[in-house]
Amino acid sequence: MVEGATIIGPLVIVGGHEDKFGHPEILERIATLAHQQHPDLPLAVVTTASHQGSLSFATYHNAFRQFGLEVFPLRIDSRQEAQLLYTSQMLTQASGIFFTGGDQLRITSVLGGTSFHHALMEAWSRGLVVAGTSAGASMMSGTMIVAGDAEQTPARNAVNMARGMGLWEDAVIDQHFSQRGRIGRLLAAVAQNPQTLGVGIDENTAAIVELNNHRLTVWGEGTVLVVDGQKTTMNNASEAQPGEPLTLTHIVVHVLSRGYGLDLDQREPIRVFS
Amino acid sequence: MVEGATIIGPLVIVGGHEDKFGHPEILERIATLAHQQHPDLPLAVVTTASHQGSLSFATYHNAFRQFGLEVFPLRIDSRQEAQLLYTSQMLTQASGIFFTGGDQLRITSVLGGTSFHHALMEAWSRGLVVAGTSAGASMMSGTMIVAGDAEQTPARNAVNMARGMGLWEDAVIDQHFSQRGRIGRLLAAVAQNPQTLGVGIDENTAAIVELNNHRLTVWGEGTVLVVDGQKTTMNNASEAQPGEPLTLTHIVVHVLSRGYGLDLDQREPIRVFS
Repeated sequence: MVEGATIIGPLVIVGGHEDKFGHPEILERIATLAHQQHPDLPLAVVTTASHQGSLSFATYHNAFRQFGLEVFPLRIDSRQEAQLLYTSQMLTQASGIFFTGGDQLRITSVLGGTSFHHALMEAWSRGLVVAGTSAGASMMSGTMIVAGDAEQTPARNAVNMARGMGLWEDAVIDQHFSQRGRIGRLLAAVAQNPQTLGVGIDENTAAIVELNNHRLTVWGEGTVLVVDGQKTTMNNASEAQPGEPLTLTHIVVHVLSRGYGLDLDQREPIRVFS
Repeated sequence: MVEGATIIGPLVIVGGHEDKFGHPEILERIATLAHQQHPDLPLAVVTTASHQGSLSFATYHNAFRQFGLEVFPLRIDSRQEAQLLYTSQMLTQASGIFFTGGDQLRITSVLGGTSFHHALMEAWSRGLVVAGTSAGASMMSGTMIVAGDAEQTPARNAVNMARGMGLWEDAVIDQHFSQRGRIGRLLAAVAQNPQTLGVGIDENTAAIVELNNHRLTVWGEGTVLVVDGQKTTMNNASEAQPGEPLTLTHIVVHVLSRGYGLDLDQREPIRVFS
């Protein structure tokens, strides 16, 4: 890392159920990005979302070891811990930060606005990779999806939103996307504010977002479905009654598989690698 | 009906599980369209798709009676029956034709290319309403969806297609759409030929299609999701290996609820009634 550079780090946003062994392409990519930043430092694994933090940590400990990457746990389970100077200082000794799955509301309610949150943003702005899977993916949004029925007509109130951790302000991220039939709730979220880019990530699939390069790249087995509502003309999100089906026109959708991506400035698909 | 007019009839394409009693808006609409055409003739109910044809007929018999509409059964279970002159002549005594749910491959394999199929197209071209629910909806496509896993990444071979009854050649219709998480297979179908308009219809929801007016109108409780792939630029449907995830960009999606519709010429959303 060049001294004094303030290049924001990449976000590795994983749709859950990534391969840990066998063909762990996504975790290997995270390890590579962490290694590029600081070859000698370990990766911090934040298990706040999980109710079985130790188990979750052990799994990632073994998985990242395959690539020679050491990890250490950040088991922050209360706002008191998240305010400790010691906890924040741990991030200065990390090559990157990985958030496990669980409940995204645990992450935001425990960490939101704490010293740790500030230290996280600071470490990220120094170039550290911030990765997260499932709940650890959702929480990266500016406004995040908390809950919402799957397999449902896009309707007003089909989705519950809350303030996320704000790593990617202009996006709303959903995970386990194709596997849990979540297009309806993502469309409902985009209808509320079409400025927001809807990003639905399949299992064992990652969107790697470089905000400084304005670029999203897809890795892994499935697809990332991007919902761009900026050109919508008819949108009854404000007039519809709670539970009433939505009308939402001229939504542009891109289905992107491995090697494809999106120019985030133009919101145009690109071929990144083959 | 004006003597000698050859105005093609409306298609009432129902996404399954339409309310039969209680608030049977869609069946009432079908009854109205049949009544407008021939106030004194009954509606033909074709139960070919169903394995319980008698039961299915009885349900619709009771349901349509609420609107003072008589119905009669067309239980055609073999190609031999479908070739009988008598069977085809029944349609000259009908004010409209309704296809029940079941298996769309039963409809096409029993009726496709028979005298009855020709009589159906002839009756439709005389202005008769042709309505169908679930399997009776899917079969109206030129090329129809036979099967395909729900809740799956859009992938090559994610969807099995077959020749439909060809009432709406340029569309591929899917039903139980939001309820069964079928966006992936509809996108996979559109990827194969982006000329085709993808039409995903929710349960208790209908797309009423007037091909002569180039107009689709939504009725009922849920939404109709329209997938327009004509502007797609990147599309790896032909290069992807079987099972490989698709890339498919610049898909235009319209989510349409009751009273909204689509100009089928321009593929532009419209407000039809409020």
